[in-house]
Amino acid sequence: MNTKNPIYFFILHGPNLNLLGTREPDIYGTMTLQSIQNKIDSYLDHFAIASRYQQSNHEGELIDFLHDASHWASGVVFNPGAYTHTSIALRDAVSAIAVPVVEVHLSNIHAREPFRRISMISPVCQGTISGFGWQSYLLGVQSLVYQLDLDG
Amino acid sequence: MNTKNPIYFFILHGPNLNLLGTREPDIYGTMTLQSIQNKIDSYLDHFAIASRYQQSNHEGELIDFLHDASHWASGVVFNPGAYTHTSIALRDAVSAIAVPVVEVHLSNIHAREPFRRISMISPVCQGTISGFGWQSYLLGVQSLVYQLDLDG
Amino acid sequence: MNTKNPIYFFILHGPNLNLLGTREPDIYGTMTLQSIQNKIDSYLDHFAIASRYQQSNHEGELIDFLHDASHWASGVVFNPGAYTHTSIALRDAVSAIAVPVVEVHLSNIHAREPFRRISMISPVCQGTISGFGWQSYLLGVQSLVYQLDLDG
Amino acid sequence: MNTKNPIYFFILHGPNLNLLGTREPDIYGTMTLQSIQNKIDSYLDHFAIASRYQQSNHEGELIDFLHDASHWASGVVFNPGAYTHTSIALRDAVSAIAVPVVEVHLSNIHAREPFRRISMISPVCQGTISGFGWQSYLLGVQSLVYQLDLDG
Amino acid sequence: MNTKNPIYFFILHGPNLNLLGTREPDIYGTMTLQSIQNKIDSYLDHFAIASRYQQSNHEGELIDFLHDASHWASGVVFNPGAYTHTSIALRDAVSAIAVPVVEVHLSNIHAREPFRRISMISPVCQGTISGFGWQSYLLGVQSLVYQLDLDG
Amino acid sequence: MNTKNPIYFFILHGPNLNLLGTREPDIYGTMTLQSIQNKIDSYLDHFAIASRYQQSNHEGELIDFLHDASHWASGVVFNPGAYTHTSIALRDAVSAIAVPVVEVHLSNIHAREPFRRISMISPVCQGTISGFGWQSYLLGVQSLVYQLDLDG
Amino acid sequence: MNTKNPIYFFILHGPNLNLLGTREPDIYGTMTLQSIQNKIDSYLDHFAIASRYQQSNHEGELIDFLHDASHWASGVVFNPGAYTHTSIALRDAVSAIAVPVVEVHLSNIHAREPFRRISMISPVCQGTISGFGWQSYLLGVQSLVYQLDLDG
Amino acid sequence: MNTKNPIYFFILHGPNLNLLGTREPDIYGTMTLQSIQNKIDSYLDHFAIASRYQQSNHEGELIDFLHDASHWASGVVFNPGAYTHTSIALRDAVSAIAVPVVEVHLSNIHAREPFRRISMISPVCQGTISGFGWQSYLLGVQSLVYQLDLDG
Amino acid sequence: MNTKNPIYFFILHGPNLNLLGTREPDIYGTMTLQSIQNKIDSYLDHFAIASRYQQSNHEGELIDFLHDASHWASGVVFNPGAYTHTSIALRDAVSAIAVPVVEVHLSNIHAREPFRRISMISPVCQGTISGFGWQSYLLGVQSLVYQLDLDG
Amino acid sequence: MNTKNPIYFFILHGPNLNLLGTREPDIYGTMTLQSIQNKIDSYLDHFAIASRYQQSNHEGELIDFLHDASHWASGVVFNPGAYTHTSIALRDAVSAIAVPVVEVHLSNIHAREPFRRISMISPVCQGTISGFGWQSYLLGVQSLVYQLDLDG
Amino acid sequence: MNTKNPIYFFILHGPNLNLLGTREPDIYGTMTLQSIQNKIDSYLDHFAIASRYQQSNHEGELIDFLHDASHWASGVVFNPGAYTHTSIALRDAVSAIAVPVVEVHLSNIHAREPFRRISMISPVCQGTISGFGWQSYLLGVQSLVYQLDLDG
Amino acid sequence: MNTKNPIYFFILHGPNLNLLGTREPDIYGTMTLQSIQNKIDSYLDHFAIASRYQQSNHEGELIDFLHDASHWASGVVFNPGAYTHTSIALRDAVSAIAVPVVEVHLSNIHAREPFRRISMISPVCQGTISGFGWQSYLLGVQSLVYQLDLDG
Repeated sequence: MNTKNPIYFFILHGPNLNLLGTREPDIYGTMTLQSIQNKIDSYLDHFAIASRYQQSNHEGELIDFLHDASHWASGVVFNPGAYTHTSIALRDAVSAIAVPVVEVHLSNIHAREPFRRISMISPVCQGTISGFGWQSYLLGVQSLVYQLDLDG
Repeated sequence: MNTKNPIYFFILHGPNLNLLGTREPDIYGTMTLQSIQNKIDSYLDHFAIASRYQQSNHEGELIDFLHDASHWASGVVFNPGAYTHTSIALRDAVSAIAVPVVEVHLSNIHAREPFRRISMISPVCQGTISGFGWQSYLLGVQSLVYQLDLDG
Repeated sequence: MNTKNPIYFFILHGPNLNLLGTREPDIYGTMTLQSIQNKIDSYLDHFAIASRYQQSNHEGELIDFLHDASHWASGVVFNPGAYTHTSIALRDAVSAIAVPVVEVHLSNIHAREPFRRISMISPVCQGTISGFGWQSYLLGVQSLVYQLDLDG
Repeated sequence: MNTKNPIYFFILHGPNLNLLGTREPDIYGTMTLQSIQNKIDSYLDHFAIASRYQQSNHEGELIDFLHDASHWASGVVFNPGAYTHTSIALRDAVSAIAVPVVEVHLSNIHAREPFRRISMISPVCQGTISGFGWQSYLLGVQSLVYQLDLDG
Repeated sequence: MNTKNPIYFFILHGPNLNLLGTREPDIYGTMTLQSIQNKIDSYLDHFAIASRYQQSNHEGELIDFLHDASHWASGVVFNPGAYTHTSIALRDAVSAIAVPVVEVHLSNIHAREPFRRISMISPVCQGTISGFGWQSYLLGVQSLVYQLDLDG
Repeated sequence: MNTKNPIYFFILHGPNLNLLGTREPDIYGTMTLQSIQNKIDSYLDHFAIASRYQQSNHEGELIDFLHDASHWASGVVFNPGAYTHTSIALRDAVSAIAVPVVEVHLSNIHAREPFRRISMISPVCQGTISGFGWQSYLLGVQSLVYQLDLDG
Repeated sequence: MNTKNPIYFFILHGPNLNLLGTREPDIYGTMTLQSIQNKIDSYLDHFAIASRYQQSNHEGELIDFLHDASHWASGVVFNPGAYTHTSIALRDAVSAIAVPVVEVHLSNIHAREPFRRISMISPVCQGTISGFGWQSYLLGVQSLVYQLDLDG
Repeated sequence: MNTKNPIYFFILHGPNLNLLGTREPDIYGTMTLQSIQNKIDSYLDHFAIASRYQQSNHEGELIDFLHDASHWASGVVFNPGAYTHTSIALRDAVSAIAVPVVEVHLSNIHAREPFRRISMISPVCQGTISGFGWQSYLLGVQSLVYQLDLDG
Repeated sequence: MNTKNPIYFFILHGPNLNLLGTREPDIYGTMTLQSIQNKIDSYLDHFAIASRYQQSNHEGELIDFLHDASHWASGVVFNPGAYTHTSIALRDAVSAIAVPVVEVHLSNIHAREPFRRISMISPVCQGTISGFGWQSYLLGVQSLVYQLDLDG
Repeated sequence: MNTKNPIYFFILHGPNLNLLGTREPDIYGTMTLQSIQNKIDSYLDHFAIASRYQQSNHEGELIDFLHDASHWASGVVFNPGAYTHTSIALRDAVSAIAVPVVEVHLSNIHAREPFRRISMISPVCQGTISGFGWQSYLLGVQSLVYQLDLDG
Repeated sequence: MNTKNPIYFFILHGPNLNLLGTREPDIYGTMTLQSIQNKIDSYLDHFAIASRYQQSNHEGELIDFLHDASHWASGVVFNPGAYTHTSIALRDAVSAIAVPVVEVHLSNIHAREPFRRISMISPVCQGTISGFGWQSYLLGVQSLVYQLDLDG
Repeated sequence: MNTKNPIYFFILHGPNLNLLGTREPDIYGTMTLQSIQNKIDSYLDHFAIASRYQQSNHEGELIDFLHDASHWASGVVFNPGAYTHTSIALRDAVSAIAVPVVEVHLSNIHAREPFRRISMISPVCQGTISGFGWQSYLLGVQSLVYQLDLDG
């Protein structure tokens, strides 16, 4: 096991995700960010893992959050939103920290506009989960549990 | 008529536009941002429309401003500056809000470097006005007046 | 002021615009070309500007019209239709004449097929207005008024 | 049955097809346009369908012909010749009319130069028939008969 | 006449065509493959031509079928399905046999996703027929009749 | 709940996955396919879901398996292996069946050669999970449980 | 010698060349088309060759002129103007006639915008002469004299 | 020496090579596959190496053959035919096995259509030999002899 | 000499450079940002030039810093980090200010991933220095000394 | 007149042109380089212009020759052969000297392989003449005579 | 047999190959060029073929060598080194001579940087051999023996 | 310290740099190569480093110089001129020698034509310095002093 004690997961949401529940619900669903976070907390309870959450529309702030999390988090579930496709700076931030990062997306980014098909972030993450709505976050948490061997 | 009451238009200026009047005047003209805003206010007076203005060099802050304006503005005139060509996050912010947004540019972006010819923002705006100097803003305001049927 | 006397504006419509009102109304609206021209004439009356109109499906004829207009028009509002994206000859015609030309489009050409996103004409026009339906023409007229300082 | 009465088919030939029989016979065959039209007329006799024919080297004139045919033709067999690969204006003309249009080519355009492999017209036609010499026209007529359920 | 005696046509269906009638009926129609084959047989009766049919989801098996048909068929009507766009091996198989092959498609492949617009197979076929639903097969048969001069 | 009864999940492995455990273990890990399947079975036991497994190196056979599974499976976890990047025929097979399909990959395909970055299959799947080794399969199963609401 | 008797050369000018002398003189020079034609006539006098001239802004009309010239001209000097870069129809017209055609340009098309660097016409001409101002026409005439061995 | 005992070479032929001798003899020569294999056997006799041969038109079957050969062959001479240019699955199969594989081609694939210039297979083979007709196989065998140091 | 008095140089560090010394030391070295700044200060002492330093992960903040520095700095040494490759807004900020800007990079950006080979910033800087570790900063300072002719 | 006295023209031949007359005569003709030079000399006699000739297969030597010629030649007729398409160094050499340079080609480079369609040299020459066999040289000489106004 | 008498083979080495044995031995091996040539000579002794060797770092000199060899050599084994990927002039030299040329490479050029995957030379050679270290030369010699039927 | 004794630096100038001072002085400045070399010598005196200089317009000669310098130089300052963008052979020469090489350019190559933006040489150099006029050489020398730790 390669984790800090007590165990914290960091759930980081990128741009426009603060609008969840009201923004284009046919693509992003009707649950708010707060409800999703409640669901994640319930899920983490099974594993006695604590959580911290942040959302930002600012690329630089997301970088700051990732730097900071490297001091206390055992894993990161990161939904980079639209920065997925353009941000080399976020990619470098993920590379620069030693904590495992899992990339998640609510929508199936491969079934949308062509410019959403390439992720600058994926190559430096542990893996990617895309297309399962808010449950993408649960799967992301689960994947970190597997990698950190916290299951049992 | 599909507008809020009282009627506010939000005029949003992107990166480097705070330098207007001093920055490369052969491309961007010699008027300052404040002078342009005065011109816009005079124009809006004809229609009894109020205005709010913001400028930011921060992509994330521009997103925050758009989110916020969705609660009180009837229309947005948006000059995304250099983020026009790179920001999927701003595109998503425009898509996410229900207020009509018009994209304006001081210079004719099609007559400059090739990387300025494609706008990530245009496809989700009502329309685009480009190349008329500070009067692009007046035309943008006018186009919202047409769309909101405020003319008469 | 850089205009001829008396002041004429030339409104030039490209291919398939003769079908306006019947052709794909979800994209192009339900007004006929004649109705739009009546609207433009009312608008020009405010400025005491006279108008001439032409429509052609022939690339060469559009070139001829532009050449001819250079002798009597103070400004041109030009909707090049589908030739926007393919015609270097029309581009050269716009370059070759000294009259200011404004490019207008009824639909938001950036929100349609990829081959409609690049305009061969824009780089040699004063500016471009796209996406405001028939009111794109009014905005085009207004922009010429600004440029020629005819506003009074 | 979705047709006008009496039933007319319009056979429209694009640029350089007036030279058929003399022009590069190894590619285009040795029959003249008149002979092909006689063959088509014999074929249409089986179905009691009348025909009209036009050929033009002018893109704009081809657009005019299509507009006009929308008032009297039940179907169009269209060989756009070299405009196939470049004309968005002809594509828009086909889109703009309600009559079904079938695209035909004498030669197999896919077995020639790369720039002949993409058709701007095909996406808005009912279908495409390519490579069967003058008999491509007969197959085009037959396909309209199928679509209009004129077979009896 | 360049045919074997007795005259057989080979109708070869590529991947996923076994699902016809149930698979995405808005694109591919509601007739089953068996019904289409019955229609083709009726059609061939007019010309006293016999038929053989095969369908396979296996690229290699389709190659085997083409090799085999070269010994007994006078013509092939081939719907390569999705292999149209990717299979150089099928292209080589068509090139390798002396029998004329006509490529047919139910849907208009030019009106769908961009990756369906290029056919690897077309350049080595006699010609291509695309977009007429199950009647594309009849037109394909008819085109072979023309080429083999079996009409009379 | 949109499932058949009894509930079966189909786990389908594409080309070269029969070699798991011996093939390039630094990329694909050291577990054999049989061991992974045992892990999946244990996991499915929690939900009382039955499983069937197939592996094939043949593109056509994978298509056959998908067609067949549409008659009895409630969900498919599909690792298309190298066909991910080239097979439009498999994409069409996934589109053609009504059963939800989840795409999984052992390795992080975005961190490898460029030609592995684009999936032809993803746009027609429910979602994609990539980079978590054999546990990608468990996450894939879990995602189907979420979608079918079998959790409770 | 492969020529008709009496010997005529056809000098054909494409779009916008009617404006020569006034249009962008830094690129195209200050001589009018009429003056250039006088120069060409003087030059042809040395060889006892007669001339005919046409200019058109219409692609279709240029095609018509080429077709017609094939009946009486021994050689064609053709400045296709902006159609150089886009017209496959003109290319086909040049291919379709048996008369040698020489392509000339006033400006050095390789030293201008990238879209002017490729000529659709060049591959089917005898040769190309570009960049020598109005003297490009004299060189074009001279090259035909060489090819037809008219030099005496 | 890094070889199994007794020493077997596996000669594997890809799609359409069963037609050798009859298929496009100007490209592929007039010898049948059986004659070539006899030549190879004679050649291998010099080195006391045994041989096994397979040909298949099925991509999946070629993968199966490579997997199987990894248990008994000391080297593979592989002509992937048209799968050379498209098959990532075959590339992965070559990577997955420990036996050295040499890629051979009868024709010079670099002197044919552009899509034949890139090999997906070459980067994971020992080397490539292309363009020497059936003698490419002998050179491939010889190269394995060198690599395995069987020469002496 | 084209400088302000007293002379200040502004050293501006882009995203993730706050992590220097801990982040991927094989690429970026083991010195912290503070140590590098101490080295720069020692170096500047030779020329009696004062310094100010800023680091930010925020694109917008970097723009703000550049705007501000234009009022007091005689030269800027700018390491834009990952924004080098994507930020047109930073490019515009550099263009907009009159102070000379030198671009520096610790690593040789041309020897890394392809997306790091193009700099949006370089074309508007005085010059670029890349690949010399922390000494790139010293060389950048030195180059400003040359340009401003401060050498003594 | 902008020329040196006495007037020398420099005729410079690039790689492989020493083989003229024997090398691929269907492309390059049957005359030797010596014969062509004799023809040029006869031609220059009309204008009392002297000539110097060089041929080299060495890119660097061609650069040296151009540098040297800038001291004594009034014009250069340059056939860069295959270096046309690849040599930026030769382009820079042409730019660097003040003497007018005319680019000539024996064959019509636009009617050959695609990689021969772009010239690195053309944009910095006075003009280009291509496709007239050895007479391209005479036309090149003539064009210099025009430009230098040596005609008498 | 299509050879000169006595029979000479010309072995030509391109740029940087003089450094063999010391240059990047993990890619190019540890044998010097002289040792390789000794190996080749031993090999040629079996066939009573004489050899000549040249190495040059100069593209032009390699062209000169090829021209010269056309007078006395029966075959050429040519390792063009880095000029493989850029030199159209060498390609033309190979085309220009009647002697068969075989292209060889020490390393597997397809397994290296992308810019090494395309050979300008291959399309005009008899064939290509790549990836077998110094034994690529022996295989190249052997292939010439086959082609010239010198095997006895 | 990783250097030879006595310490020599090799300053190597590529094509057209012999013309410095006369060639396009707005791009390259007015100093001659000799003057620059004198400046470099003065600079090297501070460090007691000796220098050798070469300039060549010949790609092959530059390769020879680099090979030779590997025997006596401790560092190379290399301005590859126009070969920067095209020469894989020079890249290989830099890779092949153990001496550190620094790439320098007088002009800012990123602010010129697009084809000057990519350097084939940069990825194998220690670093790159571009845009500082003749002082780029001094910075290059300084960077070698840093790398070799000669600063004292």
